[in-house]
Amino acid sequence: MDIREFVQSSLGRWRSQRSVHHLAFGHFEAVQSELEIVALALDDPAVIDLCKSYDVAPQATVSPFRMSWDGQSDWDESEVLAGSCVLIPVPDPDQPNRGKLLRDQGYAETMPAVGHYYLTEDGTFVLVTEYDRAAAEEKIWFINPNVRCRVSLIKTSAGTGVVTASFSSEIRQKN
Amino acid sequence: MDIREFVQSSLGRWRSQRSVHHLAFGHFEAVQSELEIVALALDDPAVIDLCKSYDVAPQATVSPFRMSWDGQSDWDESEVLAGSCVLIPVPDPDQPNRGKLLRDQGYAETMPAVGHYYLTEDGTFVLVTEYDRAAAEEKIWFINPNVRCRVSLIKTSAGTGVVTASFSSEIRQKN
Repeated sequence: MDIREFVQSSLGRWRSQRSVHHLAFGHFEAVQSELEIVALALDDPAVIDLCKSYDVAPQATVSPFRMSWDGQSDWDESEVLAGSCVLIPVPDPDQPNRGKLLRDQGYAETMPAVGHYYLTEDGTFVLVTEYDRAAAEEKIWFINPNVRCRVSLIKTSAGTGVVTASFSSEIRQKN
Repeated sequence: MDIREFVQSSLGRWRSQRSVHHLAFGHFEAVQSELEIVALALDDPAVIDLCKSYDVAPQATVSPFRMSWDGQSDWDESEVLAGSCVLIPVPDPDQPNRGKLLRDQGYAETMPAVGHYYLTEDGTFVLVTEYDRAAAEEKIWFINPNVRCRVSLIKTSAGTGVVTASFSSEIRQKN
């Protein structure tokens, strides 16, 4: 599976169940949400803007997409967990299964971020993103065309301590 | 990482947070437990018995171990989730990163089972076990020497439907 196939397989509407483990306290948090992943054209203004801000040529990118989410946590039901971001893969010309992932808003901090991804031989997408004070590690893989799993870890910037580990099971919605 | 190193890294006492996603209903279940993983000698009677029941020569096995668990679910706090099983890796002589895993009691059904494992190039242990009416797929990997993640899927025997997806974060306890 290459990054084009991975993005293509991910397009659509998904119902997500996410469990967050706050490791230091042994706490569980449950989040229910809807995800939508939509392909963007290479000449979409949002794609051109994000490429420009990282000084990346749009021709060096593949399969840009927008991900939107809308969810609710059992920790604070009044809090709205909704947002969207633009993501743009930039494959490494020498190693087609590796590359950078530009995005206009990260998960762990609300600022733009560049992650580094690779695809393993068994089709797992692995993304590592370094922030100022934290690092995020994410693995996403398909169980079948309609079920995705995602494991996300947030580590302190020192890099050894895992602060939260979360797991999402994502089921494609009938369209 | 080979199977010997994987078992060696897993020995000890672990505190586990496990979230079970019952996919059809969108339900979350939270389980807190303690795990203990102890190496067994190749001439331990439990190892010899289990080898005999599968007609496997003990010399063909490596790193047998016993796993014990004791936990509590938020679904039924009176239910005792405790037990232990003996597990014996039998590496494939031709493919050292693959093999069978014998065990005297499975997860999905309370009967003996043989699983098939492999280790990926990035150190993930993958185990697939077929039961009469279900199949279990498990991935385990280390974040650092003191944190393990485990994703388990239970599928119907037809093999396409995922019934439950669960995620455990396991933290080594100070001894």
